[in-house]
Amino acid sequence: MLESTVAAIGPLDEAAMAAARDLQGRLTKPAGSLGALEPLSVRLAGLAGSCPPPLPEPAAVAIFAGDHGVHAQGVTPWPQEVTAQMIGNFLAGGAVVNAFARQAGASVTVVDVGVATPLPVDPAALAGSAGPRLVAANVRPGTRDMTVGAALTRDEARAAVETGIRVAGELVDAGAGILLTGDMGIGNTTPAAALIAAFAGVDPAAATGRGTGVDDETYRRKVGVVRAALDRHAPDPADPLGVLAAVGGLEHAALAGLILGAAARRIPVLLDGVIAVSAALAAAAFAPDAVGAMVAGHRSAEPGATAALRHLGLDPLIDLGLRLGEGTGALLALPVVTGAVRVLHEVATFDSAGVAEK
Amino acid sequence: MLESTVAAIGPLDEAAMAAARDLQGRLTKPAGSLGALEPLSVRLAGLAGSCPPPLPEPAAVAIFAGDHGVHAQGVTPWPQEVTAQMIGNFLAGGAVVNAFARQAGASVTVVDVGVATPLPVDPAALAGSAGPRLVAANVRPGTRDMTVGAALTRDEARAAVETGIRVAGELVDAGAGILLTGDMGIGNTTPAAALIAAFAGVDPAAATGRGTGVDDETYRRKVGVVRAALDRHAPDPADPLGVLAAVGGLEHAALAGLILGAAARRIPVLLDGVIAVSAALAAAAFAPDAVGAMVAGHRSAEPGATAALRHLGLDPLIDLGLRLGEGTGALLALPVVTGAVRVLHEVATFDSAGVAEK
Repeated sequence: MLESTVAAIGPLDEAAMAAARDLQGRLTKPAGSLGALEPLSVRLAGLAGSCPPPLPEPAAVAIFAGDHGVHAQGVTPWPQEVTAQMIGNFLAGGAVVNAFARQAGASVTVVDVGVATPLPVDPAALAGSAGPRLVAANVRPGTRDMTVGAALTRDEARAAVETGIRVAGELVDAGAGILLTGDMGIGNTTPAAALIAAFAGVDPAAATGRGTGVDDETYRRKVGVVRAALDRHAPDPADPLGVLAAVGGLEHAALAGLILGAAARRIPVLLDGVIAVSAALAAAAFAPDAVGAMVAGHRSAEPGATAALRHLGLDPLIDLGLRLGEGTGALLALPVVTGAVRVLHEVATFDSAGVAEK
Repeated sequence: MLESTVAAIGPLDEAAMAAARDLQGRLTKPAGSLGALEPLSVRLAGLAGSCPPPLPEPAAVAIFAGDHGVHAQGVTPWPQEVTAQMIGNFLAGGAVVNAFARQAGASVTVVDVGVATPLPVDPAALAGSAGPRLVAANVRPGTRDMTVGAALTRDEARAAVETGIRVAGELVDAGAGILLTGDMGIGNTTPAAALIAAFAGVDPAAATGRGTGVDDETYRRKVGVVRAALDRHAPDPADPLGVLAAVGGLEHAALAGLILGAAARRIPVLLDGVIAVSAALAAAAFAPDAVGAMVAGHRSAEPGATAALRHLGLDPLIDLGLRLGEGTGALLALPVVTGAVRVLHEVATFDSAGVAEK
């Protein structure tokens, strides 16, 4: 499934992009006055292969959750059980991602791709609910500690990637016009930093941040853990499955799959924060053209996020110092994406409105 | 009316802000992880005097339109008639502001506070329409050329400010939970630059930008025009009505009134681009506490906007190189403001959700 998905990802449609550029120049506004929204609308036309491209709705957030063996190295002050507890909070509708999703009219799908502790939810109780949905797809109960051995086998990494591809396909089949990346996993900024260092070729110290807010001593330990894992495995960025297996997380691998799945279906995928962009680097390593489907929702406060965005050549839409994850930054950016496309659908031209040009 | 409105503007409520800070610390997310949204939610609690503050809805955009005698100095390549033509476009629902307002569920009110040429609309045809509304409040058909004399008399400037106060009151009385500033006026970045230079104390060259996109020669002429007007009138920033009369515009004065009216009613006012922030400087000169009601929607590409925001101590929510005006940047930022408040209403606490803390 991974290979056929990668093979289905192609370049943007130049004719649709040219049509969108032409249309932008005829709408009742000074040329270029919508700033970054104009090239975004052009790119989404290229992705859809039509001008205007469809409005990116409805929106679907997929939150992939997993745990991390490297938690044992003391890289975060939060107990591992919080991953499972927050899944309970997502499914009860009580987290920030739920509040933002309700506001944006987006559905929420939670995917257990590798949580280590029991979920405080009864799947039967959720059946038939119109609220957030739980997909049980646990590949293994958390990764192994990447400072001791590979976090995952290649087969486990592949299973997680293919879970993401499958979820993307199901959401698009159900009608989603845009996918938003979400994540939950105590300790998951540590593998994200390792992935960014490996794929973007930056030093572990430049790729590693303070996550949910660690003190100086924990931060130094975290950088040391990332460096030790990279030194141990020396992952090859040309082998993305190998990198994900060596130093990744199950939610990172699944997010890479979600991105590939969206790109193969030519549906835009709105990236959240540092976990998402680390997964996006893996997706781009599998299929460079997948970058055409990616929209950077926001600039996470994590320094690694900026390094990853630079490597991908993406400028984020929102830059407000968020560092929560879950999909919250992507949801805040969604109206900007929708607005950029809506302009092509609804704004009058100088001709049609009887407005003089300069 | 101006004096009583200014007298009604008071400081933020410290007790409500303390309650909002406390609540932010108990919600199921790492402390501070929502970045700029957290202090924004705290300030809006202080403005409302309650925690949580009401959700900022419904939203109302007020687009003040006017023309400018300084157009005769060749500061823009656009013909003056475009101001009136774009009002026709707003009322027909064909402009970018209309597309963004539909998306955000915001009403649009167009106020003719000083258009110089006939409006291509029949007010009778609009009566009873559920679409954009036109308020006829023309103080005079465009300002005078500020390089020749004062743009407005003090009475005309006051009439425009009080029009803005009246529109704010009407919109709040009709139920608006947040006001968004909009503007239309060919040539109006020139008086905006003069206002910013006068109030923020920056050089005309630092306050003046390329507006809708002028060439090098027009840009040099525009800076010269701003400098000449300021040299001629030497406006006193401690006398905001005098500054607005000397070098302002009717829409700038009315926007200052809208901001004062919102602040007096303790309703947030979401600022659009360079015209809005130049008017906000005037509002702050009338009533320093009015800044507490202001939310900077976006950072206009105009350099004067950044100088004005710095003077006001406001950080913008969106920074995407927009330079269209109309209220478009404020509308893009509206979901961020709503989201910041929604968190205080809807997100579970660690206690209530059964999630462990670090």
